[in-house]
Amino acid sequence: MNQNRMPLVEAITQYQKRNPIRYHVPGHKGRGEGLLASLYPFDLTEVPGLDDLHHPEEAIREAQQLAAEAFGAEETFFLIGGSTVGNLAMLLAACHPGDEVLVQRNAHKSVMNGLILAQAKPIYLQPEVDPITGLPVTVSLQELKIQLQKHPEAKAVFLTNPNYYGMGMNLRPYAELCEEYGIPLLVDEAHGAHLGLIQGLPGSAMQAGASAAVQSTHKMLPSLTMSSMLHVKGPRLNRERLRKALTMVQSSSPSYPLMASLDHARHYVLHVGQQELRQSLRLSAQLKDGLAHMAFSWLEVVEGKEHYDYLDPLKVTLRTHSHELHGFALREWLEQQGVFPELADEHHVLLTLSPKTTDDELKRTLSIINQLERTQLAGSNQAVHYRPLSSPLILSPYEVFQRASSSVPLQAAVGEISAEMITPYPPGIPLVAPGERLELEMLEYIQELQRMGCRFHGVEDTTLKTLKIIKNDED
Amino acid sequence: MNQNRMPLVEAITQYQKRNPIRYHVPGHKGRGEGLLASLYPFDLTEVPGLDDLHHPEEAIREAQQLAAEAFGAEETFFLIGGSTVGNLAMLLAACHPGDEVLVQRNAHKSVMNGLILAQAKPIYLQPEVDPITGLPVTVSLQELKIQLQKHPEAKAVFLTNPNYYGMGMNLRPYAELCEEYGIPLLVDEAHGAHLGLIQGLPGSAMQAGASAAVQSTHKMLPSLTMSSMLHVKGPRLNRERLRKALTMVQSSSPSYPLMASLDHARHYVLHVGQQELRQSLRLSAQLKDGLAHMAFSWLEVVEGKEHYDYLDPLKVTLRTHSHELHGFALREWLEQQGVFPELADEHHVLLTLSPKTTDDELKRTLSIINQLERTQLAGSNQAVHYRPLSSPLILSPYEVFQRASSSVPLQAAVGEISAEMITPYPPGIPLVAPGERLELEMLEYIQELQRMGCRFHGVEDTTLKTLKIIKNDED
Repeated sequence: MNQNRMPLVEAITQYQKRNPIRYHVPGHKGRGEGLLASLYPFDLTEVPGLDDLHHPEEAIREAQQLAAEAFGAEETFFLIGGSTVGNLAMLLAACHPGDEVLVQRNAHKSVMNGLILAQAKPIYLQPEVDPITGLPVTVSLQELKIQLQKHPEAKAVFLTNPNYYGMGMNLRPYAELCEEYGIPLLVDEAHGAHLGLIQGLPGSAMQAGASAAVQSTHKMLPSLTMSSMLHVKGPRLNRERLRKALTMVQSSSPSYPLMASLDHARHYVLHVGQQELRQSLRLSAQLKDGLAHMAFSWLEVVEGKEHYDYLDPLKVTLRTHSHELHGFALREWLEQQGVFPELADEHHVLLTLSPKTTDDELKRTLSIINQLERTQLAGSNQAVHYRPLSSPLILSPYEVFQRASSSVPLQAAVGEISAEMITPYPPGIPLVAPGERLELEMLEYIQELQRMGCRFHGVEDTTLKTLKIIKNDED
Repeated sequence: MNQNRMPLVEAITQYQKRNPIRYHVPGHKGRGEGLLASLYPFDLTEVPGLDDLHHPEEAIREAQQLAAEAFGAEETFFLIGGSTVGNLAMLLAACHPGDEVLVQRNAHKSVMNGLILAQAKPIYLQPEVDPITGLPVTVSLQELKIQLQKHPEAKAVFLTNPNYYGMGMNLRPYAELCEEYGIPLLVDEAHGAHLGLIQGLPGSAMQAGASAAVQSTHKMLPSLTMSSMLHVKGPRLNRERLRKALTMVQSSSPSYPLMASLDHARHYVLHVGQQELRQSLRLSAQLKDGLAHMAFSWLEVVEGKEHYDYLDPLKVTLRTHSHELHGFALREWLEQQGVFPELADEHHVLLTLSPKTTDDELKRTLSIINQLERTQLAGSNQAVHYRPLSSPLILSPYEVFQRASSSVPLQAAVGEISAEMITPYPPGIPLVAPGERLELEMLEYIQELQRMGCRFHGVEDTTLKTLKIIKNDED
């Protein structure tokens, strides 16, 4: 295929060249004032020559085929609803109501929502916890083996890889294991759109043999926010159901700038992006060197000690375990200096580089960090030793969504069914999932984690004075 | 409230002014080449100060509150997945599995998909057919009364108003009727974002007392494609379920340009847009005047003859009933001259004006149409007298989605359950909905319509040699 072309970008340019009088939507007719003034001319709709995302036959079809070739897929779908819709569609395609599916417990909330819409019954796979950082990483192969043996009827395996911090596993043995059971390996690869594109980067899910992988192209490559790709390979995931599901959850008025930015990003990574990706690896190494000179530490792979196969070099995680510095305080200080990290937790500040990160930015960053008087930024830094507890799943996420809930004091929740996800940070692994029974031991552990300084996500009342439980039918 | 402000546009501008070093997503870091080069700086994510669509507390919350005030709602939700996600969320919020809901039969496909996701059981409301044009319009109040009496357990009424061609009903009596039954009136007002904004335009669903209305802001007002608003008023639609449903079907990485364009569009319609909207009404009148001089006809309200209350003045529908001209041929000819209509059918070509349509464009259009040698554009133009037939609903759309289907020759489909929607154009009202039984009379009528030149949408095989039916469990 001719990877020098950008079929969709070209089609939009062609339409513009005709200087059309527009009696079609959108209402701005290609003109507008303010912030987005220069964008309006390219914000088009399904006029002749611009194809149709939901029935692609021309430019969009070609652009998707070029993307499939570039990213090693049999078929690629452009997503204009973010990786969210990719996760929803994979689950809707793989599961019929009541089907069991093996799902990494700390999956993105869109995966939980996909379980609701598909009415699937999750069998949660407990992720490993990296003992050095306390961060959750991918499920071990051993855990997957055990759960597949226990649940031979499961219709799919759903993993998240790499994690937010760039820790990942080589998925090849996982894909082979799924193939033994004849079920698809579905991967939320939101953080890995750049994987496998040049030497020096870890491989991608497609390269490892996954059946389907969703990549947030916008996260690590230069496409627009909310534009993602769903790559598919092999016969394990029903393509007809997948197409139907994508049509269900994606807009019937898809954004052309978002789609064009995917076409552009694919072209980019095969051309100028190759060089810029290599430069980003050099910049990442320089950043770490500079930090080392300032006696800063960052996350690195220590042979034989880690629970993951690779660390994405474009994710640089500053560690603040020196008891001088609090992750949140460091982030705030950096932001005051004009350096905006991706995220912070108690112990870490994550800097996400991309092929678009520049040499100049890197130098400015190092010179800013060099000014840091660390003692000004004290904060609590008690390590939390998280231990997973398990509660029985009484209702599926779908059943929880359909049932009424009420808030009760934490003490009164013993024996009740949780209507919410209770996720302590760190490490960000749900302790209680919706539909699980709140047993006394679990509630005591929640209070213990709270005393140790954990924050809780996913809950309506973040103080945890009250919890949301499923109302009894008699109430 | 201070309607002079644009909280989200301002927040984005503020962030830009700080000249941030971006170690967060998106991967383009505000820089890029090509078509979208000027947009990248504004394509941001949930950094401090830019709020969070899924938990709005700052700029997005304020922008939504300003929009609610401007459009007469109690609460407004910005949609970045188009009106599609608004329709899905209204149905997910209003219906529990198995619930009956009264739905206009020729609803948008996103409404049908919402019925699947919500597992609701549709009771179809047959729309009126305008005898002059053969186009389907809103359901009559009488039909709604009858169906509400027959289905007192229905949980909501879902109407589409106005239709694509701008024909609409005053919804006040419909809203009052729903209020008598204590159920929400939900309105797909995709084509009516501009309604009620100035004198001379028909009123909006919110003004008429609907519980919720989805507007494609991008269609008739100058926001970006895929940006819409969901307006809500009163206690009939459960807001907690609505919020949950919106979070389920919308991206967790929402596009800031799309959201900012909604903030901008709201500001626009209250300021410079007032004048531009008034000008668009003048241009519409000029266009019709000019057409009259060329002995062209267009759709107009004829007192006492029409099945609708109003015709949106910004929709100008050219009629080609003179047997000289075919709608599709006219569209093609116009496009060759650089005039791009919104749509065409056998008898009509729809031109959609907006406040951004200019005087100059209008003059060019009239001078182009004036060159038309009509006899060059012959085409078949046999009138189709559509009569609605009804088939019993055996399976709900949800049940159809979950069942396997197969293709059989049309003759072999007698007595089987349809797995697809069979919609003749004109008039675009589904003759058969998924889950309905294909009776002999229906199949004969389909063949008759086909002989009369109807095209069929919604079907996999548009020649109708084969139809998709539900597989029997025994197959």
